Amino acid sequence: MLFEPVSIGPVTAKNRFYEVPHCTGMGWLRPHTLAAMRAVKAEGGWGVVCTEYTSIHPSSDDLPHPSAALWDDSDIQAHRLMTDMVHEHGALAGVELWYGGARSANLHSRMSPMDVDSFPNLAGHPFQTRAMDKDDIRTFRQWHRRAALRAKEAGFDIVYVYATHGYLVSNFLNPRMNTRSDEYGGSLANRTRLLRELIDETKDAIGDRCAVAVRFSADEEIGVDGQPVLGERREMLAMLADLPDLWDINIADYSLEMGVSRFVKEAALEPYMKWVRTVTTKPVVTVGRFTSPDTMVQQVRSGITDLIGAARPSIADPFLPRKIEEGRLSAIRECIGCNVCYSGDSLGVPIRCTQNPTMGEEWRRNWHPEILPPKRRDARILVVGAGPAGLEAARALGARGYEVLLAEADRDLGGRVTREAELPGMREYIRVRDYREQQLREMANVSIFMESRMSAEDVFSVGADHVAIATGATWRRDCFDGERYLSVTSDSGSARVFTPDDIMDGKLPSGPTIVFDGDGYYMGGVIAERLRIAGSHVIYCTPSDSVSHWAGNTSERRRVRSHLARLGIQIVTAHKLVAFDGREAELDCVYSGEKMRLSALNLVIVSARTPNDGLYGEIKEAASGQALPFSLTRIGDCEAPSLIAGAVYAGHRFAQELDSLGESGHHIRHERVDVVTDIKKV
Amino acid sequence: MLFEPVSIGPVTAKNRFYEVPHCTGMGWLRPHTLAAMRAVKAEGGWGVVCTEYTSIHPSSDDLPHPSAALWDDSDIQAHRLMTDMVHEHGALAGVELWYGGARSANLHSRMSPMDVDSFPNLAGHPFQTRAMDKDDIRTFRQWHRRAALRAKEAGFDIVYVYATHGYLVSNFLNPRMNTRSDEYGGSLANRTRLLRELIDETKDAIGDRCAVAVRFSADEEIGVDGQPVLGERREMLAMLADLPDLWDINIADYSLEMGVSRFVKEAALEPYMKWVRTVTTKPVVTVGRFTSPDTMVQQVRSGITDLIGAARPSIADPFLPRKIEEGRLSAIRECIGCNVCYSGDSLGVPIRCTQNPTMGEEWRRNWHPEILPPKRRDARILVVGAGPAGLEAARALGARGYEVLLAEADRDLGGRVTREAELPGMREYIRVRDYREQQLREMANVSIFMESRMSAEDVFSVGADHVAIATGATWRRDCFDGERYLSVTSDSGSARVFTPDDIMDGKLPSGPTIVFDGDGYYMGGVIAERLRIAGSHVIYCTPSDSVSHWAGNTSERRRVRSHLARLGIQIVTAHKLVAFDGREAELDCVYSGEKMRLSALNLVIVSARTPNDGLYGEIKEAASGQALPFSLTRIGDCEAPSLIAGAVYAGHRFAQELDSLGESGHHIRHERVDVVTDIKKV
Repeated sequence: MLFEPVSIGPVTAKNRFYEVPHCTGMGWLRPHTLAAMRAVKAEGGWGVVCTEYTSIHPSSDDLPHPSAALWDDSDIQAHRLMTDMVHEHGALAGVELWYGGARSANLHSRMSPMDVDSFPNLAGHPFQTRAMDKDDIRTFRQWHRRAALRAKEAGFDIVYVYATHGYLVSNFLNPRMNTRSDEYGGSLANRTRLLRELIDETKDAIGDRCAVAVRFSADEEIGVDGQPVLGERREMLAMLADLPDLWDINIADYSLEMGVSRFVKEAALEPYMKWVRTVTTKPVVTVGRFTSPDTMVQQVRSGITDLIGAARPSIADPFLPRKIEEGRLSAIRECIGCNVCYSGDSLGVPIRCTQNPTMGEEWRRNWHPEILPPKRRDARILVVGAGPAGLEAARALGARGYEVLLAEADRDLGGRVTREAELPGMREYIRVRDYREQQLREMANVSIFMESRMSAEDVFSVGADHVAIATGATWRRDCFDGERYLSVTSDSGSARVFTPDDIMDGKLPSGPTIVFDGDGYYMGGVIAERLRIAGSHVIYCTPSDSVSHWAGNTSERRRVRSHLARLGIQIVTAHKLVAFDGREAELDCVYSGEKMRLSALNLVIVSARTPNDGLYGEIKEAASGQALPFSLTRIGDCEAPSLIAGAVYAGHRFAQELDSLGESGHHIRHERVDVVTDIKKV
Repeated sequence: MLFEPVSIGPVTAKNRFYEVPHCTGMGWLRPHTLAAMRAVKAEGGWGVVCTEYTSIHPSSDDLPHPSAALWDDSDIQAHRLMTDMVHEHGALAGVELWYGGARSANLHSRMSPMDVDSFPNLAGHPFQTRAMDKDDIRTFRQWHRRAALRAKEAGFDIVYVYATHGYLVSNFLNPRMNTRSDEYGGSLANRTRLLRELIDETKDAIGDRCAVAVRFSADEEIGVDGQPVLGERREMLAMLADLPDLWDINIADYSLEMGVSRFVKEAALEPYMKWVRTVTTKPVVTVGRFTSPDTMVQQVRSGITDLIGAARPSIADPFLPRKIEEGRLSAIRECIGCNVCYSGDSLGVPIRCTQNPTMGEEWRRNWHPEILPPKRRDARILVVGAGPAGLEAARALGARGYEVLLAEADRDLGGRVTREAELPGMREYIRVRDYREQQLREMANVSIFMESRMSAEDVFSVGADHVAIATGATWRRDCFDGERYLSVTSDSGSARVFTPDDIMDGKLPSGPTIVFDGDGYYMGGVIAERLRIAGSHVIYCTPSDSVSHWAGNTSERRRVRSHLARLGIQIVTAHKLVAFDGREAELDCVYSGEKMRLSALNLVIVSARTPNDGLYGEIKEAASGQALPFSLTRIGDCEAPSLIAGAVYAGHRFAQELDSLGESGHHIRHERVDVVTDIKKV
């Protein structure tokens, strides 16, 4: 039933797989990168492929986060690139017209954003919106209409009115934000007036050929996970129920809607969605990080949704629908819910994916998520270490047809992935291993050797043409002060110092413990949680102002701190660790230098990692200046400790570029402005 | 003497005005925008104009901060745009070759950055560098040489070896970071080896026609302001003294080197520079936010420097040298040291400037810092309000030749600028007013009316063709919770609630006071300081994790918090204000909801502002649907409260676009990728 066609107004989706609008860090800055990436999803079987939030006017400009744009007719061509390629594969193309209001800072266009009232910027910039008067509302509607017409000309099949996520239209709906006294504020009818007008005007403008979708929230405000605060939402949706051709439903809490797997599991929106399909005759789409066909079928059967919406699962596996259709379920590369994808837009760079190393490289490097170029010539390749880098290298090399020997020192495949997946909330990370293990087991040309720690001599004896060292990294017992790695422990203290590796090895401290987080991503918090669950009193300290500061890029930072607080973990920010003697830790405020002393019997240092590059060094040394009989490459954490995404990427890149090893590494297409010599004329 | 030529190796600067490399938020993403901006500086008389940090290889990629790039030959054309235009004006063009090492995150290129050792990323990302082996060092030197050759081909006259600011080469010099055991680490000779090789190889590659400059730090590590920690610096520089053609000297503490005027005044590097010129025969350049010709002359006379380096003063006034040369000192638009310029690169968008609203608009809008288009036809224009928006509108309209009436309700010009400049550390902000007042006084076609509060009736009676309302904004007494403006005070508390306007009006609270900062830029901290100086016990509270979080974009965030701590101001982060009754405030942790109670007799709320748009509304209402006899426009804070930079910009834009009022506001050139229809072929 997932492959039944679904009518959406004047168009028909060939199946129920619907890639909802999602940001990519590409947008108007990188049109070729974007089009090629969306095209791969259409090729992978998605019935509908949408582009990201698409600004209708420069007064809604989100740089450095690169939205798409339909500011004027010169923007049409960029979108046509994408729609043409999407149509080639029989999919529909959707576009989400967007006006940010108080959420867009307009740092590039330098125009005043407009909103219901003069609000502070909701992304934390120290400036406010212009309160819209009725002239402004008229102007805004014209902009929206014109953008819809451009969208049609660009070849889109579905055009969104975007009424969620705290952007302008949703603020008009919001009874707390919309305190206007004119006909656009006050009563429910007044607050929905703008949305109704936009739906009508969009239908009028492009409804003959395009479907009009509305993105709308099923709940009114953020509450406890799984317990919707419905407010007026049902009444509101009922008033507009059959006006658009499609309802794309999400919820008020973005950190739940696109929650990381540490806190949020598959189908998390179900409790919010129960009533939606009962009040409209139009098709409904919603998301839930669906990767299981059974869950998808159940969602449709139980009347939760008509279309299986997906952003992240379509990023991790653009070929998800095709694999389901062809019954190749074990070949699905399931999203692990790490939200590294989201960090692209957060940071203003193209989206990447832990599971899918080709994400963002479709155009630039001509990488394809499923099709790898056949080997240019026969070669035997030894990959030492079966962590995320080694596994992906072996998989991709195997897919290219090489003879691959994968040697793992441990009893399990997966390296850090296997170890980290045992930590609280991290279970889904194991999918990084499982997908690759599954693939490798089907390849006759790949041999896996377990419990095979390799010496330099062993490596030479294999007779490989190429050797990849993927031996990972080890957490350090010292702290980096910005310049140096410094020990912070006295002799008495050092026996009570632990690292994440110790914890993952099951060496747990007992008694009050300080977790010092010099890393700033998830590990510090996860380790603190692990120890708290084991019964220790835990103090989490960080020199940063924020707990898990980098997790701000993956939308989980706030949840991490709330979660730690809820577990009863004490939190100390803005302090660096200076000394620990096994009874007491000394910390300095990073601003004032003021000392703080904390009693604790144990210290876990989550700082940096040492690359396990001993074997690499030994092999180089063994050659003693002579040419090696094989090419030698460090990949992944053993080269430069990074995210799991970085390790998978390094493994994949090694496999893709093996034929051209030694060539400069940056033969990539570069998306940039063509320089016009006489710039006055541009 | 400032206009004496200076020989720099094989080239000669026509005078001593040297625009040092500075970031722009333009870089390789925006070559036309960049070239036009640099060209204006050459036109304004700078003898040398440099471009920003220019990456030599994709493994040094700073996106979302847009550096320039010389990655391959296809990058040359973008730079030639700039060098050609700079040469047209008789200036030399410089380029700063850059390899970021542990400071570049390579979020775009996804390559592992290389550094002396495997260090954590120094910008706070959770990944590490690859420790360079000797092959890597060789490769790096080749990259550097090739980039130098490309720089020469691009027409640059000065090519930098960049050995400061915590980037790769400086880390080799650093005795704490460089703990290598090979010939590139250990002794001073070893640690300077790479720099020496780069200088030699760069001279060898391009020294026939181009000068080789080295950017080098005069002190070894961050100490107390004005008290250099010299370390080995003198010895190090002496070893290399006459190898390059120019020394560009800065210091270890970037927040001092480019300190905001709140903390750092003109010529702050002088104590660090005293010895430098004694150990080299080569010309020296350094910076110090020089805007006073007397200071500049004194710097040269006293042997501190040969060339007057400038980044910010050249941004605030690209015509600074010409104005000095022509003796038009009162026409100098002096940098106020707010560092809003730096926020462009911090945020990944083009540089802007509080004093110079044309910065970043040279190409896009064809704006020029000194030349405004003459009025198209005669018109009488009333500007109501002489704050930053009104003053700039009147100045620019006056320069265009219009008849301008500027009405100010107060006894002083300047509006918020005049008021804020009285707050601690903010004195230099008054330059925003002073420059404009000075200019206006010289314009016969501009009439200024002081103490002239205008009613709607008054406005009609003026008989203007165009009316700009620039009446500013007023700080609110309530707090914004993300959706609503909520009062947090009971009846008993409200009498003890103050706003920044009260403080600036001289209404100071007495006794313990909470300053609640819901704004996040400078005002909260400045008000706290003001009250502390007046003797109150002060508690600064913010719902953010950081004190003055937005000031992270202007390089002053850390200094603000250290400064407040030093003043004895108590700091509470991550708490929102819930209630205040005149004796006690109740705050909630924004993560856990846990209550905190603080005793205080007074509360200053620094949250949002209400636009003073009453007059604007009255005029609109008076027209009661009929067409007004004049065009009516809100500008600046009265439209949408913003930075002072935003107000000046709004005033300027109004004046520039007056002739085309009513037309869509975005007829601007848009720097973006040309779309190639068949993307497979790109």
